[in-house]
Amino acid sequence: MPTIKNNIHSITAFAPATCANVAVGFDILGFAFEEVGDYVTLTLREDNMISITTITSAESLPLDVDKNTASFVIQRICEDLALKVGFSIQIQKGIPVSSGMGGSAASAVAALVAFNGFLDEPLSQAELVRYALFGEELASGQAHPDNIVPCIYGGLTLIHSTVPLEVINLPVPNIFCVLIHPHLQVSTNDARKILQDKVSLKDHIKQSANLAAFIAALYEKNLELMKKVLTDILIEPQRAQFVPGFYKAKIAALKAGALGASFSGSGPSMFAFAKEKNVALTIAEAMQTELKIENINSDLWISRIGHEAAHITQIR
Amino acid sequence: MPTIKNNIHSITAFAPATCANVAVGFDILGFAFEEVGDYVTLTLREDNMISITTITSAESLPLDVDKNTASFVIQRICEDLALKVGFSIQIQKGIPVSSGMGGSAASAVAALVAFNGFLDEPLSQAELVRYALFGEELASGQAHPDNIVPCIYGGLTLIHSTVPLEVINLPVPNIFCVLIHPHLQVSTNDARKILQDKVSLKDHIKQSANLAAFIAALYEKNLELMKKVLTDILIEPQRAQFVPGFYKAKIAALKAGALGASFSGSGPSMFAFAKEKNVALTIAEAMQTELKIENINSDLWISRIGHEAAHITQIR
Repeated sequence: MPTIKNNIHSITAFAPATCANVAVGFDILGFAFEEVGDYVTLTLREDNMISITTITSAESLPLDVDKNTASFVIQRICEDLALKVGFSIQIQKGIPVSSGMGGSAASAVAALVAFNGFLDEPLSQAELVRYALFGEELASGQAHPDNIVPCIYGGLTLIHSTVPLEVINLPVPNIFCVLIHPHLQVSTNDARKILQDKVSLKDHIKQSANLAAFIAALYEKNLELMKKVLTDILIEPQRAQFVPGFYKAKIAALKAGALGASFSGSGPSMFAFAKEKNVALTIAEAMQTELKIENINSDLWISRIGHEAAHITQIR
Repeated sequence: MPTIKNNIHSITAFAPATCANVAVGFDILGFAFEEVGDYVTLTLREDNMISITTITSAESLPLDVDKNTASFVIQRICEDLALKVGFSIQIQKGIPVSSGMGGSAASAVAALVAFNGFLDEPLSQAELVRYALFGEELASGQAHPDNIVPCIYGGLTLIHSTVPLEVINLPVPNIFCVLIHPHLQVSTNDARKILQDKVSLKDHIKQSANLAAFIAALYEKNLELMKKVLTDILIEPQRAQFVPGFYKAKIAALKAGALGASFSGSGPSMFAFAKEKNVALTIAEAMQTELKIENINSDLWISRIGHEAAHITQIR
């Protein structure tokens, strides 16, 4: 059993925002953003309590340790490892709540990565995923690894098995990602509940063909092919209802030169891919304009796909 | 409009047997075998008639030009191009009838490739596919390109769009393919009719994950990964009923070291992949033994995945 190293006072870790599904890979594809993400600091306490001292930039999130994904997973892992240790947790949210940008996953992952830094025998990536899943179950009622995996592995990931966890790091295309967060809240739970539990064989074939060609496009570095196939015919049509103006924003993105655009995770955030940064800016403006017509304000990020997984940023 | 060159008397073309679906890519993946296939010879006639003079090794096939895929597509293309020309057609079948090895496609494709050799302006691959589809419609009532495409493009192919036709030649793994043809006839039509027209979302996700990982495995040349993911959870369970002993033969193949095994196309033929030729032989023997227990005799081929597309073998 691992034990706590005795020379560390406090560790801060960063975990990136993530985009799950990526249009063609519902529940199996995801990628990490660069820079956008959550920071979590774990500071050792004299007693064996776990508490949240501050949450920055997300007033709606609970300080109750049983309700926040970061503290919840730290409690769980300390119990499982029978560690007599306490932490004060500081959370600096860079990811909006219920945005479809993997915020609940990032807080849990950042906490776990910081925690892992205290251990003399660190846990594996697969173990970290397993614990982060408890956080997802807390946040949305369902333990889906689609945001956790790109958060912990970095880059663009394919989960080809959940039990046991099997992950492939796919080639990361040299492109820019536009991320638009409309100021609407869509709970992951609601977005999942409305999904039909059957798919027509015809749609399965079409979506599979797009997915397979997208994987080939990544390896071939073929952005023209990517543009042809980065289309979600299965899930997006069912979730478009949650965002007024979704299709107008998507069409505007494609007209402005996007290689593809769809929901980030279960939405309401949307992503679009662009070859060049200036094209990404034009796409972002076009999408925000369409949302604005529906009286929806939005935040905007432009980022490369982040090669870096969640990682420690400071040890004191 | 193309016209017939005036210095050619007769052309023979070869078209390979093909395996459609490849476990994880129903209706979209397929590959060509090496050597196994049909030969079709087109010989110019003085009149403008099209006739079949001989069909070798397949007594059950009709000599009626309206019922054979080879003559049917030649009639059609001559009409469309308004060519006043006649051909005697000789067909040498290397592919058993109704075996799931793409026999109807191969005869049509070989005829079209031979015909194309007579033209001063040859038709494109996509045009050849379009005409070969008329043959598939004749043979099975449905115009599916899943055997035609690997037959015309060679290697391992992904059809990512049918209208317009868009094909990717995937990396061909350096492996051996076992092909077992149980002496049972399963019509493509029957094998398609029994398929459920809906797929559960859960199964769609699982099959998609396997497909995506299979594509990654091809590019990564990762045979261990291929072995983990080359599994059909959607279609195979519905078609296993057509071949008594199917699962026993499949399990025997996997125990003998196969990287994966499933139906070739709609069956009854089965394919299995092997790293080495001697392993392929052991797999083949194990599969044939299981079928024999069910009183089913079978033919056997061991082949690499054929890089070569259908092609002309003789011009006189």
